[in-house]
Amino acid sequence: MQISEFQEMMRRLYFQRDSERGTKGTYDWLVDEIGELREALEAGDKEAAEKEFADAIAWLASLANITGIDLEKAAVNKYNEKCPKCGHSPCKCSF
Amino acid sequence: MQISEFQEMMRRLYFQRDSERGTKGTYDWLVDEIGELREALEAGDKEAAEKEFADAIAWLASLANITGIDLEKAAVNKYNEKCPKCGHSPCKCSF
Repeated sequence: MQISEFQEMMRRLYFQRDSERGTKGTYDWLVDEIGELREALEAGDKEAAEKEFADAIAWLASLANITGIDLEKAAVNKYNEKCPKCGHSPCKCSF
Repeated sequence: MQISEFQEMMRRLYFQRDSERGTKGTYDWLVDEIGELREALEAGDKEAAEKEFADAIAWLASLANITGIDLEKAAVNKYNEKCPKCGHSPCKCSF
């Protein structure tokens, strides 16, 4: 599934609720999901981690929807087959 | 671009570095990027927000790579044209 298709699916499912909740509330929910992802990873629970990865990208897409940002376009504009910092593939940054 | 293609691009660009950094370090970097996204949104800076959305999905994909998780499969398994909690499209959850 394309990133843009996934974002559009999130729009169909959740845009009204996301809009009502607003940017701050949706961002806070994303942060909660990122925390749950940490817990799943620390527990070594792969099945739970898969669900938390799903939630993380879902809430990121919801946040992109209510802030008017095309997640796929943003991702491809910055990461286009080379590291945006050093310009190499694979990355050769010194950090 | 498909979610899986983006994850594979992140693998080509960053897998060696991500592996060396490890799960905790990569997770911490994701958290930093989520924080930078908040700053961009609070500042109302759309151009910066686009870059931070790109970084957020990039680090999420990096974390999925080093934990052996297929981000697209995880996302589509959980969110498949209906809300995983209430089963409706659009979501009718009472939260």
